[in-house]
Amino acid sequence: MTISGSDSAPLDPGARVDMQRFCSTLDRSSSIGAGRPGGLSRLALTDADREMRDVFVAWCREAALEVRVDRVGNIFARREGREPTSAPVLLGSHLDTQANGGRFDGVVGVLGALEVVRRLADLGHTTKRPIEIVSWTNEEGARFSPPMTASGCYAGAYTVDWVHDRRAEDGARFGDELARIGYCGDAPVGGTPDAYLELHIEQGPILSAEGTALGIVSHAYASHGFQVAFTGETAHTGPWPMERRRNALVAAARLMVAVDEIGWDHAGTGGKATAARVSAWPNKAGTLSEWAEVVCDVRHECAVTAGVMAERTRRAIGEAAARSGCDATIVDSWSWGGRIFSDELAELGRLTARRLGYSWRDIPSQAGHDAYFLSRVCPTAMIFTPCRDGVTHNSEELAEPGDLEPGLNLLLHVAAARADR
Amino acid sequence: MTISGSDSAPLDPGARVDMQRFCSTLDRSSSIGAGRPGGLSRLALTDADREMRDVFVAWCREAALEVRVDRVGNIFARREGREPTSAPVLLGSHLDTQANGGRFDGVVGVLGALEVVRRLADLGHTTKRPIEIVSWTNEEGARFSPPMTASGCYAGAYTVDWVHDRRAEDGARFGDELARIGYCGDAPVGGTPDAYLELHIEQGPILSAEGTALGIVSHAYASHGFQVAFTGETAHTGPWPMERRRNALVAAARLMVAVDEIGWDHAGTGGKATAARVSAWPNKAGTLSEWAEVVCDVRHECAVTAGVMAERTRRAIGEAAARSGCDATIVDSWSWGGRIFSDELAELGRLTARRLGYSWRDIPSQAGHDAYFLSRVCPTAMIFTPCRDGVTHNSEELAEPGDLEPGLNLLLHVAAARADR
Repeated sequence: MTISGSDSAPLDPGARVDMQRFCSTLDRSSSIGAGRPGGLSRLALTDADREMRDVFVAWCREAALEVRVDRVGNIFARREGREPTSAPVLLGSHLDTQANGGRFDGVVGVLGALEVVRRLADLGHTTKRPIEIVSWTNEEGARFSPPMTASGCYAGAYTVDWVHDRRAEDGARFGDELARIGYCGDAPVGGTPDAYLELHIEQGPILSAEGTALGIVSHAYASHGFQVAFTGETAHTGPWPMERRRNALVAAARLMVAVDEIGWDHAGTGGKATAARVSAWPNKAGTLSEWAEVVCDVRHECAVTAGVMAERTRRAIGEAAARSGCDATIVDSWSWGGRIFSDELAELGRLTARRLGYSWRDIPSQAGHDAYFLSRVCPTAMIFTPCRDGVTHNSEELAEPGDLEPGLNLLLHVAAARADR
Repeated sequence: MTISGSDSAPLDPGARVDMQRFCSTLDRSSSIGAGRPGGLSRLALTDADREMRDVFVAWCREAALEVRVDRVGNIFARREGREPTSAPVLLGSHLDTQANGGRFDGVVGVLGALEVVRRLADLGHTTKRPIEIVSWTNEEGARFSPPMTASGCYAGAYTVDWVHDRRAEDGARFGDELARIGYCGDAPVGGTPDAYLELHIEQGPILSAEGTALGIVSHAYASHGFQVAFTGETAHTGPWPMERRRNALVAAARLMVAVDEIGWDHAGTGGKATAARVSAWPNKAGTLSEWAEVVCDVRHECAVTAGVMAERTRRAIGEAAARSGCDATIVDSWSWGGRIFSDELAELGRLTARRLGYSWRDIPSQAGHDAYFLSRVCPTAMIFTPCRDGVTHNSEELAEPGDLEPGLNLLLHVAAARADR
C-alpha cells in the first residue's frame, strides 16, 4: 500500500497548530449542551452528547479520517500511516462533561488531537505509524457510574455486558441509551496502541499560579475510593427512642464528616478527602431511613499517606455504622495512581518543550483520567495546560487560547515524533 | 325535618362495635397499595390512594352517608343528626401511608369512625348533632411536603392554591394529581365542627409495654422542625484544595450529625432529634456539591427543653455552614405541640373508659397528627390504642383486633355522648 505524499523526513521543527481553526471547533463544542452561562452540561449518552458526537464525526470524515465506533461507544478516527500494519499512536480524551461542567475539561484533548491531525495533513506529513484520535464514552461518570467506564472497558477492567448494564439515576440503561443515540458500534473493544497521549487542562492551580506554560505529568496522586451502603430500619421520627434508632442517613452523615476530617488532617501536605454523593431510602420527613449510600474518596501524592487515609476511612465506616446502630457494606472500592506514566514519553515531552521554547514543569495528576486505564495497555503520557486559578467541574472553568497553544504544539510534535519512530 | 328512628335517649351503655365488620374493612384496606410483606405503600394521590378512596366512599354511600369532597381532596361522610343545623362532631384520620408504611397508622381512625357510624345505625341511635367521618389528604407527607397538608388547609394554615402547587419529588403537582385521581372536589375547605375526635395507634411502646388498653392523649411533644439549605460551589474532588472547598454536602452532613448528637444528649429524658432527609446537587462522584438541603427536627415532652434543643439546632446550622465554607438558609421551620387538646373531651374519655372497664392512662403524643391542626378550630381529642412494641412507619407495624377493640368502643361512646350533648 502506498500513501500519497508520504516521506520519511521528520516534521518541520517550525510547525505549529492553527489556533484559529482549533478555537472554531472549541467554540462549536461550547454551543452544544449548554449549562450555566459559560459552561456545559453535556452528560454522557444524552441528546447533547449525540449532537456533539455527530459534529465530531463529521469533522473527522471531512478530514478524510476513517471513523469506527466500538461496542461501548468509543469513537476512533484514524489517519493512516506509511506502515498501516504498525500499532497506531492514540491521541484523545472525552467530550462528555459534568452537570455543571466547563468547556475545556476533556474537550481540549479530543479537539486538540483533531487539530494535530489536520495540521499534519496541511503539511503533507504522513507519519510512519497511523495516528488515531479517540473520544472515550462517559469519562465523567456524571450520568453513569463509574467514571472512565469505556476506557476501563478498553483496558479490560470491565466487560462490554457489564458496561451496557450500568444504570443512570433515572433508570436508563447504558446500553439502551448508547443504541438510542446511535453510537453502539460494532467494532470490538480494546487494542494495543503503540502509545497513548492525552492533552488536558490541569484542573489545578499550579501552572496558572506559576505562569508555567506546560505540565509534563510525572505521576498520579494515589487515590482510594469507596461506595459504602448502610442498612438500618425505618421507624417514626417522633416516638421512636434514640436508643433504638437505626437511621442509615445518620450513619452516612457520620461517615461523610469523618472523611472530611481526614482530608483536613492531611491538607497541609496537599491531601484531599471528599464525600461526593449520598442517597437514602425512604429519605422522607417523618421516617428514619433504612438504607443510605455514600461515595467518597481520599487522595494524596504520597502512596503511603494515601494508604493511611484509606485505612482511616475504613475504620470510619465501621465507627459510623456502630454509632448509629446500622450495618455497613463496602459495595465497591477502587484505587488508582502512582508512577503509571511512561518515563520515555515524559522525557520526549520535556525535550520537545525545551526545543519549542516553552516553560514546563513535572506535575502530578490529581484527578482521574482515561489515561490511567490506557497506561495498563500501552506507554502513556499526559500533557497539562494551565486553566485559570485551577477552577474546574464548574461553569467558570477557563483556559484562554494562549493557555492552550503550547500544549497543542507539544502534542503535535510529540505525536509526530512518536508516530515516526 | 324529621329523622326516622330518632329519639333523645342516650346510647345503650352496653353498646359495642362489631369487630368482625371493622376487621373486614381493615383487611380490605390492607389489600390496597401493597408494600413490603405485611405493610402498605399507599402514598397520597397515587392510583392506590384513589382505589382506597373509591372503596371508602362506596362504603360510606352504602351506609347512607352523604359524601362530599373538598377542594384539597378531604373526604367527609355525614350522618345526619336530629338537629341538622348543629355543628357536627367530626371523627377521622387519614388513609395514606408512608413508603414503607403499616396497615394501621391513620387507617384505624378512618375505618374506626366508619364502624362507629355503622353501629349507631344498627342500634337505631340518631345523635342530636350530625356526625361526620373525615379522611384527610396527604397526612404523611411522604409524597408531598409538608405532612398534614390538607388538615392544615382546613384549619387555615395554608391556602388552597398553595396546597395545589406542592410538588412531589418526581415533579408531579398536588393539584394535578388530585384532579387525576378524581378527588379535587368542589366543597369549600374549612369548617367549625363541634369537636374532632381522632383514634390512632400509639406509634410508641408505652401502652404495649404496660399492657394498658387505652391512651387518653393529654398533650403533644413540643416539636421544632427545620428545612435548611446550604450553598457552596462545585469543584473537582481531586485537585481542589481542602482550604478552598465549599462542599454543601459536607455542611449537610455536619448538621445531620449535630442534630443526632442533640437527640442523644436528651435521650435520657425522652428527647428525640432526627435528620430525616437530605438532597444535594449535583451530588455526583467527582464533583463537590454546590447545594444541599436537610430536613430535621427536635422533640421533647418539655417545651422549655425542646426550645433549648431547637436553639442548639440553629447554632449547629451556622456552625455546619461556617466549618464547610458554605452559606446556610433556613428555608422553612415549624413548631407544634403543647397542651393543645380539649381537657373537657379528655375527661369525657377518661370517664367513659372507666365506665367501660378499660385500663387507661394519660399519654403524650410524640408524632404529628391532623388533630394538631384541628385543635386550632374546635375542641379536639385523641385516643391511642396499643401497637406491638411501638413499631410504626414500618411494614412490621402491628395492632391485633384485641388491641384495637377498646379504642373503637371508646370512640363509639365518646362520639355519641358528645354528639348528643
